[in-house]
Amino acid sequence: MARCLFIPLLLSAASAAPLPLVPMPQQVTLSTGALKIDSNFQVTTTAYSDARLQSAIKRFTTRLANQTGIPDQSRDRQGAVLLIECQQAGPTYPTLSEDESYILDISPATARLTARTTTGTLRGFETFLQLVRPGPDGFEVPALHIEDRPRFPWRGLMLDVARHWMPVAVIERNLDAMAAVKLNVFHWHLSDDQGFRVESKRYPKLQQEGSDGNFYAQAEVREVLAYARDRGIRVVPEFDMPGHTTSWFAGYPELASAAGAYKIERRWGVFEPTMDPTREETYTFLDNFIGEMAALFPDPYFHIGGDEVVDKQWKQSASIQAFARAHKLAGSRDLQAYFNQRVEKLLKKRGKTMIGWDEVLSPGLPPETVIQSWRGPTSLADAAAKGYRSLLSYGFYLDHLKPASDHYANDPAPPNLPTREAALILGGEACMWTEYANAETVDSRIWPRMAAIAERLWSPAAVKDTDSMYERLDIVSRWLALTGIQHRASQILLDRLTGNQPAEPLRILAQVSEALGIDGRRTARRYTSLVPLNRFVDAIPPESELVRDLIRAAANVLSRDQGERSFNPDLRLSLTQWASVEPRLRPLARNNPLLTELLPLAANLSTAAGIGLRALDFLERRQTPPAGWIEQQIQELDRLEKPVAEVRLAAIRLVRFLLAQLRQQAKPQPLANSNVRSRYKPLCNGPRTVPNWTPRRAPAHALLRNSFVAKGSLYENEG
Amino acid sequence: MARCLFIPLLLSAASAAPLPLVPMPQQVTLSTGALKIDSNFQVTTTAYSDARLQSAIKRFTTRLANQTGIPDQSRDRQGAVLLIECQQAGPTYPTLSEDESYILDISPATARLTARTTTGTLRGFETFLQLVRPGPDGFEVPALHIEDRPRFPWRGLMLDVARHWMPVAVIERNLDAMAAVKLNVFHWHLSDDQGFRVESKRYPKLQQEGSDGNFYAQAEVREVLAYARDRGIRVVPEFDMPGHTTSWFAGYPELASAAGAYKIERRWGVFEPTMDPTREETYTFLDNFIGEMAALFPDPYFHIGGDEVVDKQWKQSASIQAFARAHKLAGSRDLQAYFNQRVEKLLKKRGKTMIGWDEVLSPGLPPETVIQSWRGPTSLADAAAKGYRSLLSYGFYLDHLKPASDHYANDPAPPNLPTREAALILGGEACMWTEYANAETVDSRIWPRMAAIAERLWSPAAVKDTDSMYERLDIVSRWLALTGIQHRASQILLDRLTGNQPAEPLRILAQVSEALGIDGRRTARRYTSLVPLNRFVDAIPPESELVRDLIRAAANVLSRDQGERSFNPDLRLSLTQWASVEPRLRPLARNNPLLTELLPLAANLSTAAGIGLRALDFLERRQTPPAGWIEQQIQELDRLEKPVAEVRLAAIRLVRFLLAQLRQQAKPQPLANSNVRSRYKPLCNGPRTVPNWTPRRAPAHALLRNSFVAKGSLYENEG
Repeated sequence: MARCLFIPLLLSAASAAPLPLVPMPQQVTLSTGALKIDSNFQVTTTAYSDARLQSAIKRFTTRLANQTGIPDQSRDRQGAVLLIECQQAGPTYPTLSEDESYILDISPATARLTARTTTGTLRGFETFLQLVRPGPDGFEVPALHIEDRPRFPWRGLMLDVARHWMPVAVIERNLDAMAAVKLNVFHWHLSDDQGFRVESKRYPKLQQEGSDGNFYAQAEVREVLAYARDRGIRVVPEFDMPGHTTSWFAGYPELASAAGAYKIERRWGVFEPTMDPTREETYTFLDNFIGEMAALFPDPYFHIGGDEVVDKQWKQSASIQAFARAHKLAGSRDLQAYFNQRVEKLLKKRGKTMIGWDEVLSPGLPPETVIQSWRGPTSLADAAAKGYRSLLSYGFYLDHLKPASDHYANDPAPPNLPTREAALILGGEACMWTEYANAETVDSRIWPRMAAIAERLWSPAAVKDTDSMYERLDIVSRWLALTGIQHRASQILLDRLTGNQPAEPLRILAQVSEALGIDGRRTARRYTSLVPLNRFVDAIPPESELVRDLIRAAANVLSRDQGERSFNPDLRLSLTQWASVEPRLRPLARNNPLLTELLPLAANLSTAAGIGLRALDFLERRQTPPAGWIEQQIQELDRLEKPVAEVRLAAIRLVRFLLAQLRQQAKPQPLANSNVRSRYKPLCNGPRTVPNWTPRRAPAHALLRNSFVAKGSLYENEG
Repeated sequence: MARCLFIPLLLSAASAAPLPLVPMPQQVTLSTGALKIDSNFQVTTTAYSDARLQSAIKRFTTRLANQTGIPDQSRDRQGAVLLIECQQAGPTYPTLSEDESYILDISPATARLTARTTTGTLRGFETFLQLVRPGPDGFEVPALHIEDRPRFPWRGLMLDVARHWMPVAVIERNLDAMAAVKLNVFHWHLSDDQGFRVESKRYPKLQQEGSDGNFYAQAEVREVLAYARDRGIRVVPEFDMPGHTTSWFAGYPELASAAGAYKIERRWGVFEPTMDPTREETYTFLDNFIGEMAALFPDPYFHIGGDEVVDKQWKQSASIQAFARAHKLAGSRDLQAYFNQRVEKLLKKRGKTMIGWDEVLSPGLPPETVIQSWRGPTSLADAAAKGYRSLLSYGFYLDHLKPASDHYANDPAPPNLPTREAALILGGEACMWTEYANAETVDSRIWPRMAAIAERLWSPAAVKDTDSMYERLDIVSRWLALTGIQHRASQILLDRLTGNQPAEPLRILAQVSEALGIDGRRTARRYTSLVPLNRFVDAIPPESELVRDLIRAAANVLSRDQGERSFNPDLRLSLTQWASVEPRLRPLARNNPLLTELLPLAANLSTAAGIGLRALDFLERRQTPPAGWIEQQIQELDRLEKPVAEVRLAAIRLVRFLLAQLRQQAKPQPLANSNVRSRYKPLCNGPRTVPNWTPRRAPAHALLRNSFVAKGSLYENEG
């Protein structure tokens, strides 16, 4: 039997839609018929059960009610049954490499979910919920057999709560969404130059002076830990050191390598304040602090950051330099290595295994240390070659606001990697740094793209068809909204821009615009933590679903190249609507800079739409445009494509696609039916192509190879 | 000085939009300039302050942050100041007729909010928040002077939590929205045939047998009471008796007038089980129960329902009939009067004043009793004539899903009412019965129409311009969404219908469709409390904002009748979009009855849109259509207007409007510039015209008069 059936090809009987599973299970066998979900549907455990499983069942039935609108009433049920056969509880706190496998077997009469542990059961519940759909006889799940287990044991999301404060509610709804796509590690970036976010009872000035009052009380931390545990998610705390520590020094300046009062940093970037690695008092402090945090956070892994250490304070300190000479430490790298080894001993004493970013990798690092690779594929390969276990984060930086497809093509263990080294790769973590995201906007910066990364980390390596991923992601994105995640709630932020006046043109503009990521924003204006993130760019998503859908629909029409060409009426209507956005936005924008800055963007949209309408005319009539016309328009699009107000016009991609088809039409060669979708991909480039980012024109296998030979790094780590 | 300036006429300098205040304050004087709201904005108390006021300030600054995206940071502020001059706390628990007045004075330099009590301050905060808008230099509030106080002291919302269960979160977000429009009474309909929703420790079988487990623990009740009190809202509990009591009898059948086991009622309607008014044990039970509830609910008013008593059990009981004869009670009305008087004594013993629905009004009723009028204007007049204080609910039944304008025209104390009787009218309450609304959908059944009723109850009687109300309501509806109320979150319910597939045609259909109220639904199919409310009708709102806006925009163009006619491009685009909804919906609807039932609706929309497009052609070209064409189309619209799947096509109103303009154009008489908005109102009728509902063709003053001469009642009370 094939290891993995590609579900997008398996259209179910009841519906033309694919099974909207993300991540794709390891093995799916479709059967015929469906199991009815109505008010009589019941869930029963037949083997092991405990409070954690029972509360998971309660959440499951509540969500089933949300998905169907059928009230969750517990009495007098007599309908189809989901039997839960959980063999044992498994560990009470989720652990690395625990058994997460499950088997889901659904027939028109009954469903059976089998798992060795509660965690496996949780994963199976999510698959079941993704399968629920309206059928000819009410809601149903299709009959099928699924056997599933993760490819990697470490599938994480790192969230920076230091640069912008994220209340517990934000954390919890993201944990819900993480669980929904079978992620199992929440990496909590709890301290940085801009904030120290957890209560220390031993050193209370950490949060008192370092947080503006925005920190998690220890009781809240415990609440989050329990919430995550219930959902099969480990929580790995990160306290970044010895750099990125300005906020510590606000309360405890004696920890720093240079004298002086310190205040919370309001700017973004990499700063000089660094812990003094040479004073014993530093380690006494860290010993006590780590002792307190090690007791608070049950996970055996403990992240010490270790990235982006600026050695200026060290170089300027006579005593530190004297210490280095005395201890034969050749330079700043050696000083950091010394620091890491001291800290590692403190962690080991508490039973914790150290994790650090790339930079912790240096001679003498204990072999059990886990390296989180952010600087590029070479660092991951380097760690593996030296026998360290590692996690890939390079290529999974959500705050760059790259398309999901880019992340999706990024494989922690590409096929050409030697087996021994591949075995050391635990998985990966997406990173959400929050210079340009706050509690209101962070959900849309993480979701739905995080789900594509979750699939990369859970599903077999061979599951890599981008079109299939997007088709399922569009559905799963809406499904995720039912978990409470707010990534699709942008209308409320758009309404704010107009003072809550009805503003259809703004909605239309938002549908075809995309927010720039950190690269586009940090150069655009002087941002600090005090600058509100309340503009159009903050309200809109990083990837336009509508433009992608319109291109797909148009490609489908063009692929059926014989006979009449009847495009989806949406295409012409959309272009027509776009053409009129600017004049309709103008009166609303009067005296409102939040809208005025968008008028050039709207004007670009109008112009591009005009080009698109003409191209559509040519295509529909199968006419050849005047000589040079296409080239002229492409030049015009290059101009129109330039970001405005930190926003990129996704609509341009559709117009480029139409022009490319028109050019193709001018050639004698007919369009082939196959590969029609991928043909337009190169057009998606433009300002989104970033040097050193894995190039998207390359075929998938080449992409994977390339990702290990790139020379530099696009990224600046923020943590 | 005029008592009330009509704000819609006062366009502020910075923006073409009206001041979006709902309810309209009693007196507004616009000044020039604006006060800047940025991260330095501060709030300071200068007089009385206490914990309730401080927590109100905290909520205020949090909401200001939500409205502007400017973080609520408490330190180092140096900007504009809002000074709070609250003279005294006022009562700790909100009371009837407490002073709710406030004065808000805003200059470009500072703002001052003056009130006698904390409650007045709360009202002023809401006005301030409604004034916040994007200005040329960031967010701002316009300079102005407002003096405000309510017209009626009792401005309420009754919510039925018996027929569909409403969790605490639903109650609390509705309390937030109520406070936002200055409502001050939450009438909590806690028991009915279908459920008993509050925990009794004295008689626990009430909730154990009568609630399916869905009831408020007393701790939760206290939480809600505190939540309401913080927002200046009284909570009046209702325990409906002696009818509507099936759920009581599930646990305590001995209370009933007929022997037998009772189960929670699952159907909707009026049922026979009724308390036995003749047994002393009934009053012992009620004495204990009222004692427990009187201690739980601090408000001095206590609602005993008393409506819709079916006397079948009484007539069939020999002992009850014997009792009646022995006590010289002439019939069932006398029996109920006897019951009421006994219950009233139990209430008085606990310091409570009785309220009841119309039916409690009978000879011997204590004069302090408050009558809540639901059956029609005559009952209100009747109560007033007999010297009872009363509340108007007739005309404020939200579950009928009437347009906001209908409720808006409904005045509890119309100008022709004698002064003595007018003085007895405490105000009004909107009623939200929940046969056809559940926790997911109830917000959109209450909001934004509730805000129009809130204006009727707060603002001077002279504030009654419907166009102005709608213009402000469209803005305030979006503003309300920031309080957390979910009335605009319908997309998530629409997504569910398609299995979360992208479905633009469904969104378009939803924009031009309107849900029928209880009248249209109870006859459509056999509903019970077990039938899911998960269809299109449940997802869409009762009133189409888009259709109203399109008609308004078209009317504006037509009113400028000289020269070129250039309609908003939205109009033609919308009609074109509507014409294509049906073919685009069809593939999605395959095998999906939730969508299949909408295909006839979509087909009607397509046909109507085609008529509209032709009418638009004629109008734009100033052509006269062929003889008889208009009449023929109107007949066709009559056919297309018939509800489908319990949904009404609002789009028809726009097409009717265009046809009416076309007919006007055919006449020699030019269109007058004035009154152009109201001209199209009669077109809004059709299936929405309900017999005995105050007719909408009449001018406002006639409406008010008429509302006191209508003969019958449209309503069936549900409580």
